[in-house]
Amino acid sequence: MSFKIITISREFGSGGRFIGEQIAQKCGIEFYDKKIIEHVAKELGISEQIVANQGEYAPADITGVSLSDQIFNIQQKLIKDIAQKEPCVIVGRCADYILSDRDDVLNVFIEANKPEKAARIKKLYHKSDDEVKKLLKDVDKKRSVNYRYFTDKEWGNRKNYDLVLNSSVLGYDKCIELIAAAYA
Amino acid sequence: MSFKIITISREFGSGGRFIGEQIAQKCGIEFYDKKIIEHVAKELGISEQIVANQGEYAPADITGVSLSDQIFNIQQKLIKDIAQKEPCVIVGRCADYILSDRDDVLNVFIEANKPEKAARIKKLYHKSDDEVKKLLKDVDKKRSVNYRYFTDKEWGNRKNYDLVLNSSVLGYDKCIELIAAAYA
Repeated sequence: MSFKIITISREFGSGGRFIGEQIAQKCGIEFYDKKIIEHVAKELGISEQIVANQGEYAPADITGVSLSDQIFNIQQKLIKDIAQKEPCVIVGRCADYILSDRDDVLNVFIEANKPEKAARIKKLYHKSDDEVKKLLKDVDKKRSVNYRYFTDKEWGNRKNYDLVLNSSVLGYDKCIELIAAAYA
Repeated sequence: MSFKIITISREFGSGGRFIGEQIAQKCGIEFYDKKIIEHVAKELGISEQIVANQGEYAPADITGVSLSDQIFNIQQKLIKDIAQKEPCVIVGRCADYILSDRDDVLNVFIEANKPEKAARIKKLYHKSDDEVKKLLKDVDKKRSVNYRYFTDKEWGNRKNYDLVLNSSVLGYDKCIELIAAAYA
């Protein structure tokens, strides 16, 4: 099969975003992560932090459409437009679900083992062991709840992805090599 | 990481066994599937068919150890011996669990989409559409129950595998290429 788009879903601390960046670079295609957040924040006139957190805790506004729904709707349109426009890597944002009507999308999930995830989070975010432990539990739980809400599917269930890689066992370089080879 | 052994678990009809054979050939290593069944059948003096079906429906024998348990125990010892002896590909038989104390095992799961699985089963086993439908449901259910009984883990859960590939989306050749590249 010939792919145009790669979506990357990932466990927190698995290095999935880094792997996605590297693949985009290796394959010479665009990388979308923060750019989506910036665009949505600008359009809604809210902070990027709220968009990044999916506005999960935002109450419904006066129209009855919650901020979370508004963010999702704009994001959905944007991701469909991007996929139409150019080959790229998109990290997170339910992109696998949003693009499920296309047949040129390679859906990837990056998992990792707990010790490696904890070490990466500790190093990147300068957190204590207790904070890392809490983040490891909370971030993926939020992703899971968010994904379920918008897609009615189970986040991280291998059936939603074409390729699942354990970055602790394979290593980042091998993950990048394999995904690029699958895309080629 | 450097791998010696590849275990392949697979959905029925996904082409996982074929992919495993091809990888073994490509990498120049042994392929274990039927050979394990032959060995266990010979040792227990029972038919290969019973071993292949894991003796799931066999009643407990006079010692209180069911035939299913006996098969598993012999199989377990054999798989550990094989892994000690030589680099190889092992298909099914809970090999990922049996070898989980080793750090040189690449655990692969092959999944596929229903239409492609149905077409493959129909072609390989000359079954009617209704029979194919039943097989698609029953075979993986048995594998799942069997895996749960012996390993206390969930068959097909991506967390048990280092690499999961959808053979319908990627194609058999690409699956073979990617697994061989991960192993190299």
